[in-house]
Amino acid sequence: MSGISKTPEPPYYAVIFSSQRTEGDKAYGRMADKMVELASQQNGFLGVESARDEKLGITVSYWDSLEAIKNWKENSAHKVAQTKGKTDWYKNFSLRVCKVERQDFFEM
Amino acid sequence: MSGISKTPEPPYYAVIFSSQRTEGDKAYGRMADKMVELASQQNGFLGVESARDEKLGITVSYWDSLEAIKNWKENSAHKVAQTKGKTDWYKNFSLRVCKVERQDFFEM
Repeated sequence: MSGISKTPEPPYYAVIFSSQRTEGDKAYGRMADKMVELASQQNGFLGVESARDEKLGITVSYWDSLEAIKNWKENSAHKVAQTKGKTDWYKNFSLRVCKVERQDFFEM
Repeated sequence: MSGISKTPEPPYYAVIFSSQRTEGDKAYGRMADKMVELASQQNGFLGVESARDEKLGITVSYWDSLEAIKNWKENSAHKVAQTKGKTDWYKNFSLRVCKVERQDFFEM
């Protein structure tokens, strides 16, 4: 699940989730892995890219429709994680839903 | 320039740049900092978010129009960096241009 997603031709959708963590793991790593695994089993999932350093984490997930994003948002295990995110894991975050209009890939 | 961008109400545009680096710095860090500085001086620039770990780097820049993105793409110093990106710095990358349709912020 790591690396650059081989998404299909646009248009499709992206969810950009940027976050700053609280101190300590608090079972975050395990839950984050599980969420990626669960998301990738959803209908309409196209891929996920993720990077984190000391300052910021960015996870971008790709979906074939707004409906697929809505269904994932309402997934019950994901809802539990969303709550834990606000109470335990994140100092702050932004979530943006976007329509991907153009893409370009480069390989050496 | 670090952290989460305080973007205005959508719609606006995002460029998602995901990349895997080659070995060694090769003046990458200095150029990356300079590009963020230069981008932030462009008309229509709304913010930038960036994270990198061992596997992947993700930089998302936000813009008020497709024209602002086009102008930044054609900026002469940025063009030099784009060339160096392909010859020296990146094993592979993806670049996606998106229209942000919805956003949500959380602060603890």
